[in-house]
This record gives sequence, structure tokens and C-alpha cells, in this order.
Amino acid sequence: MSPAQKTSQVVACVAYAEGRRVGDVALENISEVLKQDDRFVWIGLYEPDEALLKEVQAEFGLHDLAIEDAHLAHQRPKLERYGDALFIALRTAQPDREQRRIAFGETHLFVGTRYVVSVRHGASLSYADVRARCEGQPQLLAKGPAFVLHAIMDFVVDQYFPLVDGLEDSLEALEDEIFNDRISRDSTMRIYTLKRDLLEIKRGVSPLIDICDRLMRADLDVIPDDARPYFRDVYDHAIRINEMVDGLRELLGTALEANLSLTTIAQNEATKRITGWAAIFAIPTMIAGVYGMNFRFMPELQWRWGYPVVMAVTLALCGMLYYRFKRSGWL
Amino acid sequence: MSPAQKTSQVVACVAYAEGRRVGDVALENISEVLKQDDRFVWIGLYEPDEALLKEVQAEFGLHDLAIEDAHLAHQRPKLERYGDALFIALRTAQPDREQRRIAFGETHLFVGTRYVVSVRHGASLSYADVRARCEGQPQLLAKGPAFVLHAIMDFVVDQYFPLVDGLEDSLEALEDEIFNDRISRDSTMRIYTLKRDLLEIKRGVSPLIDICDRLMRADLDVIPDDARPYFRDVYDHAIRINEMVDGLRELLGTALEANLSLTTIAQNEATKRITGWAAIFAIPTMIAGVYGMNFRFMPELQWRWGYPVVMAVTLALCGMLYYRFKRSGWL
Amino acid sequence: MSPAQKTSQVVACVAYAEGRRVGDVALENISEVLKQDDRFVWIGLYEPDEALLKEVQAEFGLHDLAIEDAHLAHQRPKLERYGDALFIALRTAQPDREQRRIAFGETHLFVGTRYVVSVRHGASLSYADVRARCEGQPQLLAKGPAFVLHAIMDFVVDQYFPLVDGLEDSLEALEDEIFNDRISRDSTMRIYTLKRDLLEIKRGVSPLIDICDRLMRADLDVIPDDARPYFRDVYDHAIRINEMVDGLRELLGTALEANLSLTTIAQNEATKRITGWAAIFAIPTMIAGVYGMNFRFMPELQWRWGYPVVMAVTLALCGMLYYRFKRSGWL
Amino acid sequence: MSPAQKTSQVVACVAYAEGRRVGDVALENISEVLKQDDRFVWIGLYEPDEALLKEVQAEFGLHDLAIEDAHLAHQRPKLERYGDALFIALRTAQPDREQRRIAFGETHLFVGTRYVVSVRHGASLSYADVRARCEGQPQLLAKGPAFVLHAIMDFVVDQYFPLVDGLEDSLEALEDEIFNDRISRDSTMRIYTLKRDLLEIKRGVSPLIDICDRLMRADLDVIPDDARPYFRDVYDHAIRINEMVDGLRELLGTALEANLSLTTIAQNEATKRITGWAAIFAIPTMIAGVYGMNFRFMPELQWRWGYPVVMAVTLALCGMLYYRFKRSGWL
Amino acid sequence: MSPAQKTSQVVACVAYAEGRRVGDVALENISEVLKQDDRFVWIGLYEPDEALLKEVQAEFGLHDLAIEDAHLAHQRPKLERYGDALFIALRTAQPDREQRRIAFGETHLFVGTRYVVSVRHGASLSYADVRARCEGQPQLLAKGPAFVLHAIMDFVVDQYFPLVDGLEDSLEALEDEIFNDRISRDSTMRIYTLKRDLLEIKRGVSPLIDICDRLMRADLDVIPDDARPYFRDVYDHAIRINEMVDGLRELLGTALEANLSLTTIAQNEATKRITGWAAIFAIPTMIAGVYGMNFRFMPELQWRWGYPVVMAVTLALCGMLYYRFKRSGWL
Repeated sequence: MSPAQKTSQVVACVAYAEGRRVGDVALENISEVLKQDDRFVWIGLYEPDEALLKEVQAEFGLHDLAIEDAHLAHQRPKLERYGDALFIALRTAQPDREQRRIAFGETHLFVGTRYVVSVRHGASLSYADVRARCEGQPQLLAKGPAFVLHAIMDFVVDQYFPLVDGLEDSLEALEDEIFNDRISRDSTMRIYTLKRDLLEIKRGVSPLIDICDRLMRADLDVIPDDARPYFRDVYDHAIRINEMVDGLRELLGTALEANLSLTTIAQNEATKRITGWAAIFAIPTMIAGVYGMNFRFMPELQWRWGYPVVMAVTLALCGMLYYRFKRSGWL
Repeated sequence: MSPAQKTSQVVACVAYAEGRRVGDVALENISEVLKQDDRFVWIGLYEPDEALLKEVQAEFGLHDLAIEDAHLAHQRPKLERYGDALFIALRTAQPDREQRRIAFGETHLFVGTRYVVSVRHGASLSYADVRARCEGQPQLLAKGPAFVLHAIMDFVVDQYFPLVDGLEDSLEALEDEIFNDRISRDSTMRIYTLKRDLLEIKRGVSPLIDICDRLMRADLDVIPDDARPYFRDVYDHAIRINEMVDGLRELLGTALEANLSLTTIAQNEATKRITGWAAIFAIPTMIAGVYGMNFRFMPELQWRWGYPVVMAVTLALCGMLYYRFKRSGWL
Repeated sequence: MSPAQKTSQVVACVAYAEGRRVGDVALENISEVLKQDDRFVWIGLYEPDEALLKEVQAEFGLHDLAIEDAHLAHQRPKLERYGDALFIALRTAQPDREQRRIAFGETHLFVGTRYVVSVRHGASLSYADVRARCEGQPQLLAKGPAFVLHAIMDFVVDQYFPLVDGLEDSLEALEDEIFNDRISRDSTMRIYTLKRDLLEIKRGVSPLIDICDRLMRADLDVIPDDARPYFRDVYDHAIRINEMVDGLRELLGTALEANLSLTTIAQNEATKRITGWAAIFAIPTMIAGVYGMNFRFMPELQWRWGYPVVMAVTLALCGMLYYRFKRSGWL
Repeated sequence: MSPAQKTSQVVACVAYAEGRRVGDVALENISEVLKQDDRFVWIGLYEPDEALLKEVQAEFGLHDLAIEDAHLAHQRPKLERYGDALFIALRTAQPDREQRRIAFGETHLFVGTRYVVSVRHGASLSYADVRARCEGQPQLLAKGPAFVLHAIMDFVVDQYFPLVDGLEDSLEALEDEIFNDRISRDSTMRIYTLKRDLLEIKRGVSPLIDICDRLMRADLDVIPDDARPYFRDVYDHAIRINEMVDGLRELLGTALEANLSLTTIAQNEATKRITGWAAIFAIPTMIAGVYGMNFRFMPELQWRWGYPVVMAVTLALCGMLYYRFKRSGWL
Repeated sequence: MSPAQKTSQVVACVAYAEGRRVGDVALENISEVLKQDDRFVWIGLYEPDEALLKEVQAEFGLHDLAIEDAHLAHQRPKLERYGDALFIALRTAQPDREQRRIAFGETHLFVGTRYVVSVRHGASLSYADVRARCEGQPQLLAKGPAFVLHAIMDFVVDQYFPLVDGLEDSLEALEDEIFNDRISRDSTMRIYTLKRDLLEIKRGVSPLIDICDRLMRADLDVIPDDARPYFRDVYDHAIRINEMVDGLRELLGTALEANLSLTTIAQNEATKRITGWAAIFAIPTMIAGVYGMNFRFMPELQWRWGYPVVMAVTLALCGMLYYRFKRSGWL
């Protein structure tokens, strides 16, 4: 691998001691650095190639299967334990403003007692911010890799809140449309699209509940006892997003049914209107037809006032019908 | 912080001994008061700022994460245990009569063996009433903070009953409308709104079941054994509200479907009516058309009684049709 | 309390020994009676006031919370254990023939090793029959309060069978209506009402499953081992009613959808009929219109056989259309 | 009881030793037979009266409650343990070809270490075949009553396969109808009936899963260890039927919705056709009307070619409309 | 059995030692081969007859029930343990391009510490590829039969991915159709067919989750500890397919409802269009009718400009109506 390539794939590789940054390390020197007992390293990779992953694997003795998983994207969020080390796959989500949809990515984490390796794939924000924030809380960073893991998970989960809020706004806009008599093919399509987005988000978030639960409870070496309450925080957020998504799904279902119901009501009203106007128009047509007949002996036709009287009667009948339909709400 | 501000945020801060009020305490003197073994303090805060929370945190040695949660609203109801202390988040609900919707707030509680701190956010009644009621039952208040916790939870849960009753009344009004042939766009919208309100209420109440269950069963230092049955009471209320909400949801779903069904039936009836009247009107129009033709040789036209006979036949046909449609229920 | 009032509230208060009735006891003398080790008392109350409940509480040392619950109706069915004693709330159901709906009531039971107190509220049959039946089986009644508890629960659960059977009959009547082309607004309304009744029944019965399960399994002093299989019987009945209710709910949902589907089909048929007749009527009207035109040069008009030929052609066209619509099932 | 009656109720009563038939036994002699340690008896009863059941009860010391259950039909499938003995209720199902529905019956089994008593009620095949098959496998029958129990359960479960296959065939016939434009009231009714049958079958089969599970796992004296895998077989069959039923239910639900959707589409097409033909007919009617007016000064009327030109224009307009509607799929 | 038949049924029978192929073995010589402790054999059969299965059974001492299951197809996926050996049934799936549907088959596996026997039925790819791949990883194959089991399960599960992807593509094509106003009977039918395919796939995949879970966790002799993480991989894949299927099912349900909703909206639009055009056509027809009356005294008829003025007014009215309908979106 050329050093340039490597640089683009290795976003950062930093050693920490007692919560403070010690300095950047070259991948090759990691084992050197870890000889000092109080140190741990935090490596950030972006779409690494196989060679780089092999190097990292050799450095920390990671399991073959975990490395295989980290190389391929399309993992579902999961937590796996290989001996002392943990492998965690997360699903990240970013709004893709151009295409008006949500872009998903993945982050895979290898966490040992002395190292954290994060591997990003696809749509995903850089963890530079997370690193900066961690470095700003040395007393917490001193808890080691577990705290870094928490910080990244917290960051990933928090990306879902604006997305779900966005979907809630979309639903409110839809409600406005549906209930204000602006039914259109488009509303139906948007309900469908919202549902699809919600399913995607749920797929990314709901496995986190179980992952956090295991991080909080299971007896894992890399999670010291005083770090556990922090995962409870991530757990709470995941549950909240999950609940919001479930609530939205149920409302969307109801919105779709309400939409159908309102369309049928509108249909009903249109039908009544047809009936009404058809009846009103049918009267003069029928009467005119009668007096258009060519019978030789039709006394009315000879009558001086025949025409105006028939017209007046016709108008009166139409007016009466109109009034009755209006009153019963058909027109 | 100015003393004025503090006063508005600290609603009450009172010490109790053996179930009786000992007197108001200044925040600064709490540790002094708690030197006496038989005392506990009950502090009520309303939307406190960070400085005040820090002060309270220092006084009782509360956990950072709990304080962070208490400062931010938007927590889902939860119970967390930090060492000996409990942190409980509750969702309060108040009818907002002006906007015809339900306003939600939050109450966060820190409960230790010698203190209770309640922090209110948003729409929420003052706990002055709860305090008065507790002080009126000194033999129960003597059980300490656990009883105060119970009293507040009971108070919060009981706020949901009138709300759910209100929604049940709304559903009954809707049923009346739907089944009495007064279908309107509005019914559909109200079904939707009811569903949304129910989802909100459920979000506030259903986590309480689990919280109470843990308060009743888990081995928590701050809940003495003889206080546990009291939480069973809150638990029962939460389950009952939950059941009422679930029942309402199922009925609402059925109401929405019934609404659609009835709209379609009404549509059906309107269509039949159109057919009927259209047929009745079509007869004279057609017959008149025939005798309006200009053929030179149309014997009927010359006949003396042609006109009255044709009119009579037409009327008879119309009458027959009307009778048949009436009998088959189309008109 | 006046003795008269008391009499109306205390339905019966009887002492038993070795399965046989020893005799009526006054409330005040209960402790006297219970001094004999082999005796137990069975007290039946109907909507007792607070004073009476306090007296009973004092007699048996019942818990405050249980007494509070027994005074208020609107409990959901539940089993609570206070020390050695059990508090059980049941929901009773009676057909209210006049209002064509189901009336619900409640029975609360306090069961100790030496006493049973039943408290009835609202729509509920008297337990005099149960008492008579128990007294007719002395070898079983000798098992003590546990058997009385079983007898009452069995009696309460068995009240639900005729109700559910009644709802099944109603559904069958509905099916007949729906599938025999007698669709009406009324069917929809009855489906809705059935659903509501089912939800109510389920609310009364489904908690019994859990209650019986605990009575069968939990280690409760008041239930001797040889009495447990009897609760398995009640458990089975509760499960069966529950299953019947669930089956009915699913069928009702399908009936509602089938109703909608059939209404739409009927609508479809009506529409086809309109189209058909409209087309048949349109033909003569159009042709007559054409020969009603006033052009000076229209050769057909002068033709001797113009009129009969045009009429014959018109009739033939109408007949052909009628035949085709008939064959394709539109008319 | 007369001996004749008894004979008709006692279908068979046979003793077995080491997997081989020893010979028929009279009910009275059973205790005699069982004195030999290696023997067990298998009794088959059909709708026995109370006296006979009492006799059997006395012979084997069965529990009162189990005997009561065996006398009454309408039990749900269940497994109950009374001391060493098991009481098992099964639901049998037979196609009732005449009424085109499924007839259900019940079989109750008492199984001890030395006896099996089967009690049949209602629609149920005789177990003579099962007995013959068991006797043909002496090495298995030597496992004792547990194997007989397995053979009967296997026989009962296997009766459900052809029934479910029949329902699957019905669904396929329905699919053919629905998707080949032969929508009718009848399809909807058959979907409904299928759903009801499925619910009935599920009620008979799904409790078997739990029953087999307990027979496989629980520590029951009457089931020797080497007989357990055989119940796993029945368990598998019950699960498979259950899955088939669930799959069918979901498909039926979808079929009902698809049916509605297709009806609405058909309705849509009919409506478009009306519009199309109405428009085509309206053109000549309108034009003819115009030239039917009696104005003195209408130059076209005097024109020599007025009539043919107007007719040609009218036909051209109609043809154009027809072509456009045809192209857009409305006709 | 003729040797030719046998050859067609026995696809391969190979012995392995330390992860390397030792050579083909005749069925009869297997016991000979297995005398060497480090060897295991892997036999591949295709639709074997009973005689062959009996031979294999005798060779490895397999349980009667497992052999019976392996002979019959129509097993649901399951894992059963007979002593030290495992019996595993899998459902394989292959696209049947000709019939545009999915063809299902079955693979049954007998796994012992020293042997693997795979039995294929119906639509199923040969495991020659799997064998080749295994032989290419001798270090893994050295883990013995457990690794072979993993390789086959992995291969089977991976066959489902392209199928589910194909269904996702079908759904996308459907969405395009539905939301681009190309509603047709065909879309509804395809939604239904997709649903049926999904149910079939789910039936094949979802039991794998439980099977893998047991292979990962249960204490099974044939699965050495270091082979367990490999089953976690298959487990993950099964869960992912399951989630995709569930997501698709929910989307399909929504698509069906959206389809209905859009059809109703289209219906609505068609109805409005009818109303509109009917009204526009009714105006001239009515007016022409009026002036077609034969009253002697109708001053307009005599007026020189009567005809053009009436025509102009008529056209103006029609134009105005057209404009209003256009603006309100009815035309």
C-alpha cells in the first residue's frame, strides 16, 4: 500500500494516557506505545482496504470473522464478543438533502481494554468532533476505551433525532393537507415514503436497545463498572427514538385510512352534487321536449301566454329543487 | 444567582421528623439539618437553572448523569438507580382547554433515604396539594421519602384519569355522529386526533407499569418493605389507564373502518337514487323526443286525442317506475 | 349505623365447622366464634358503607389499602396478598335485557385462613346460590375458605359463557344479513357494538387467567395443596372465554371488511346497471333528436314509411343493447 | 346399566404384555389382570355415561375433576397432571362432506403407568386402526402407555393435514376467481368462511404445541425417557399445521383487501366507460337539439346540403371522441 | 439396489484427515476408515431410497425417527439431537425462472463427531461447490464436521439473499407503477403474489434463527467451542433476511392500501370529470330544447338575430362553466 493511500484511510491514530492525548502514533509503533501500561490508542479508519485491516488485525490480534465483517458493509447493528475484545457494528444515518431521502452508512468498532478502532463506511460524519469532545473531558476519557465507545455510540444515536423530527414535521404537513381538503395522489405517495423511511430508521436503531442492554449488564472486561451508567443514557435515547418511530408508524397507518375515508366522503359529495344538478337540468329539458312535440291538437301551444307561463313554471320547479337540495346539503 | 431568582425556582424546602413538619430550611443549611438522624428534607423546584441544580447536586452527592437529565426536559418516564439514590422521571399531563389539546410536562425526582427533590418542567400542577395531604397523614409520612415518592406518583397518575375519561366522552360523541347519518370530514379528523392523543398518553403512562413494578419488587434501600404495597396501588392505576387507552385505540380503529363502511353505504344509496330518478326523467324525455320528429306521415300526430293519450301513458310509465323503485328501496 | 341499614348491607354471616353450617353469627361475635380452631366464617356484604367496612377490617385485621379498594368500585380484576390474607377483585357481568347491553359489577373478596368476606357492587347476582351449593358438598366445604373462594370464582366466570354465546349468536345473525344482500347502516353499527362488548368482557376475564395461575402455583397459606386443582378448572374456563372472545374479535374484523367489500360490489353492480339503462335510453332520444331537426331537405322525413322504419330500427338497437348487457351481467 | 348399553360404550378393553396383546378383559377384571407387573390395559370408550365413567374411575383411582371433564365435552385441548396420572383432552376434526364444513369432536385420555383410557365424543374416527398399527409394532408398544398416547396423538394431529390442504385448495380456487375478473359476492363470503374454519382449526391444534412440549420435557412418570423423541414428532406436526394456518390467515387477509382493491378498480373502469359513452351520445343529441330549434332565420336549415353536412360533422366528432377514449383506455 | 442406482444417489463419499481430503470411500468401507481416530467422512446423497438410507443408518447408528424424517420431504427447518448426533433439516430455495416463482427444496443433515451426511430433496444446488471451498481452507476444515455443517448452512442461507433482493426490486417496480398513475388489476395481483412468496421465504428462514442460536449456545458435543462463532455468522444472516422480509411485508401491506387509496382518488377525479362535462353538455341541450318548443307565440323565434344570439349566449355559458370547472380542478 502506498503511504498516500494509507493516509487517506487512516483518519487518526492517537495514544492517550490518563485521559490526556499523548500524541499521534504510526500504526507500526502501536505495540511499542502499548508497552506502557497506562496507555490506550484510538484509531479512526475510513473505508480501509483489506491490507490495512490485516495490519490492524495483526497489531491487536483480532478475530478473522470480525475483520471479515468490518471489511464488508451491510451488517446489521450488533455486538459480538471475541475473547476479551468486542466487535460492534452501528448504522449511521445522514439526511441526503439533494435526493430528499436518508443516506445510511455503517461504523464498525473494535474495542479492547487498551484500544478502540473505528471503521466508517458510506454516509457517516467524521468522528473528529467526538474525539475533540472526549479530549475536552479528560476525567471521563481516563475511563479508557469504554468511554470512547460510549461517546461514539451517543454521537451515532443522536444523529437520528433530527431525522425523526423531520419525519414528524412531514407528517404534520401531511395532516394539514389531508384534513384541509387538499387530497391528492401525492399525499398517498408521501405517506408511503414516510413509512419506508421509518422502517429503515427502525432497522438502524432498534438493535441498539439490545446492544446497550448487554453493555450495561453483561460482565464484559472492557466496560469498567463506573462506565456502565453512561450506556444507560444511550439505551434511553435508542428507546425514545424507537418509541417515536412506533408512534409515527401507527399515526401514518391511521393517516392512510383517514385519507381513504376522506376521499370516499369527497366522492360521496361529488356524487350528490351530480344528482342534484342533473335533476335540476332534467326538468326544463323534459318540459321543453313535451312542448316540442308535433301533435296537431295541443291547446297550450295556441295559447297566447303559453310560452311565458311554461317557462315560469319550469323555473319555479328548478328553483324549488335547488332550494331543497341546498337545504339537505347535496349542493 | 440572585436570591429573587432562586426563590422563584425553589418552590419549597422543608424538613420533616417522624412524619411532622419541622420547618422551612434554606438550601445552604440542609447538611446541618440532616445531622439529626430522624430528619428528611423535601425540596420542590420549578424549572431550575444549572447553578441551582449544581448546588443541590453538591448537597446530596447526586450523579452527574442524573443531574444532566433533570436539567433537560424530553426524558421518557424512567427509573434509574445511582448507588443508594433513585432518579425517577415522570410525564405529567394537563388539559389545555384553550387549544383543545393535552399539554405535557415532566417531573424529575431524586429520592434518597433522607431526601426527596422534585423538579417540575412545563405543564404540571404544583405539588403544594400533595405536600398538604402528606402532612395531614403523619403516620404515613413517617415512612419517609418513599411515601413522598408514592404520593407524587399517585398524584401524577391520577391526572390521567380525567383525560382518558374525556377521550372516552369524545369517542361516544363521535359514535353518535357516525351512526346517526351525520358523516362529515370532521369526524374523520377527530378520530385521527383522538388516536394521536391516545398515543401521547400511552407514552406517558405505560413506562410507569415497569417503574412501579421495580419499586414494588427490587431490593431498593430507599423503599422500606412496608411502603411497597403503596406502589402496587399506583401500579394498578397505571395498568388500568393503559387498558383503557388500548381499548379506546381498538375502538377508534373500528370506528374509522365503520365510518368508511357507512360512507360507502351512503354512496351506494345516493347512486341508486340517481339511477332511479334518471330513469324516471328519461321516459318522458324520450317519448317527447319521438313525437317531436318531423316525419310527414306520423298518424298519431294527426289524431285528435294523440296529445292527452301520450301524456297519460308517459305519466303512467313514470308512476310505475317510481312505485317499483320505491318498493325495492332505491328511492 | 342503624341496625336496619346494617341488615340490608350484611347479606349473610355464617360460621362453618368441618364443612357444615354451624349457624348465623352477628358481626360482633365473630372473634368469639373463631376461638374454636376448626371454624371459619363466610360473610356476604352488598355495597357496604365505610363504617361497616371499618368494623370488618377491625375484626380480621385487614390492610388499609385493601379496605380502600373494597369501598371503591372501578377496580380491575386483581389478586393482592397482604401478609397471610388475600384480596381479590372480580368483575361480574349480567345481561341488561332492557337496555340490550351488558351490565358490569364487581365483587371483592377478602380471604384468610379462617374467613371469607365477599363484597358485591353493582350488577351482580347474589351468592346465596353459591352458598347453598357449597353447603350441599360438605366434604369439599371442609377444605375451608379456599373452596369458598373457588366456588365464587367459578360462579363469576360461568356468568360469562351465556354472554359470549349471545354475542356469537348476534354475529351469526349479522353474517346472515351481510351475506344475504341485506346490507344496511345498521349492520355496521352492530358490528361496532359487538366489538365494544367483547372488549368489555375481555377486560373482565383476561386478568383472571393470571389470578388463577397464581392461586394454582404461588405458595399461599390460604390455599391448601389439595384445593389447587380446583382453581385449574376456573383457569381453564377463563382461558376458553378468552379464546372465544379473541376468535370473535378476529371474525368481527373480517366481517367489517367483508361488509365493506360487499357494499363496494353492490355499488359496482348499481353503476353497471345505470350505464346499461342510460345507454338504452340514450339511443331513441338521440335518433328522435336527429329527426326532430328542421332542415328543409331531409329526404327520410318525406318518405311514406320513414316513421315506422326509424322506430323499428330504434327498437332493434335497444333490444340488441339490452341483450348484450344482459349477457355480460350488467343488467 | 344394561350389558348391551355397556357394550356399545366400551369399544375395546384389551390387556398387553411386552408389546403383545394378551386378550380382551372385562372391566370388572382389570385389577385382577394388573396384578401381573408387566401388563397394561388399553380401554376405548365412546360417549360413556356417568355410571361407566364412575366404574373406570374406581378401577384406576382417577381424580374427580378429570372424570367431570371427561364426561362433558367442550374442553379445550389440555394436559393435566393428577398425581402420577395424566389427563389429556384433544380436539379431533373430520370433514363433514354433506354440510361442506368441518365437524369437531373430542378425545379425552387418562394415562397412567399401567393403563390408557380413551374417551371419544362427537365427530371422531375410531381408534381401531391405531390399535391395529400399534399391535403391528410390538417392540414400540412394549414401551407401554406412553407409546399408545403418542400413537393416538399422532393419529389426531394427522387428521388436520388433509383439512388444511383442503383449505389451501379453496384459497387457490378463490385466487383464480378474484384475479380473473370474476368478482362476486360469493368470493367475499367464502373468504369469510375460510377464516372461520382456520380459527377453529387453530383452536384445536395450537394448544397441542404446549402439550407436546410438556410431554417432551417435564419430568412425568408415565413418559419413559426413550419415548420422548416420539412426542417431538407430534410437536413438529402441530407446529407445521399451526404455521400453515397462520400463513393462510395472512394470505386470506390480503386476499380480502385485494378483492376490495380490484372491485374498486372495476368500479373505476365502469365509471370511465359511462363517462365515455355518455359523452359520445351527448354530442349528436346536443347538435340535433340545436337544429331542432324553431327560429325563423336559421340559414343552415335552408341550405340544400345542411342535413348531410351536419350529420357528417356529428359522426366525425363522435368518431374522434371514441378514438381518444379508446387510446386513453377509457372505453 | 443396483450399483448404478446407488451411484446416482450417492453424490460423493469422501474421507478427510486434518483438514485434507484422504480419498473417496465406498459406503461399505466407512467403518474401516473411521478406525483411524483423526478421520471423518462427508457423504452427499440426492433423494436416496429407503434401502440406501437404511445402509447409512446402520453404518452410523442413526435414530429411526431421524431416518424417517430424512426419507420424507416436507419437514420444517429444525434441529434435533439424538444422543451425540444431530439431525438438521433445512429449506433450500432456488428461483424457477421459467415459472417466475421460487422453487423450494430440502436438505437434511446428520452430523456426528466423525461424519456428516447431507441428503438433498427437490430444488437444491449441489454441494460440490461447498466441498471445494471447504477443501480450499484446510485449517478450518480441520475443525471437523462442525465446520462442514457451518459451510452448508451458510451456503443455504446465502441463497436467500438474491431472492429477497429480487422481491425488493419487484416492489420497487410496483411502487413506480402505482405512484405513476398506471393502476391496474395486475398490480394488485402482483402485490398478492409477492406476499405469498415472502411468507414462503420466511417459513424457510425464520426457524434458522433458533437453530443457529442453539448451535451457538447449547452444549453439543459435535460443535467444538472454536467453531461456535461461525454459526453466529449464519445467525446474523438469517436475522437479516428475516428483517428484510418483515420490512417488505409491512411495505407491501401499505402498498396495497395506497393502491386502494389511489384508485379511489382516481375514481373521484373521473366522477368530477363526468359531472363537469355533463353540466357543460346539458346547457346547450336544454336551451335548444326550449327553442324547439312549438308555441305559436314565441317572440324570440321571429327575431332576425334570435338564432345567433341564443347560440352565442349558450357558448358563453358553456365557456364560463368550463373555466370554473378548470379552475377548481374538476376538469
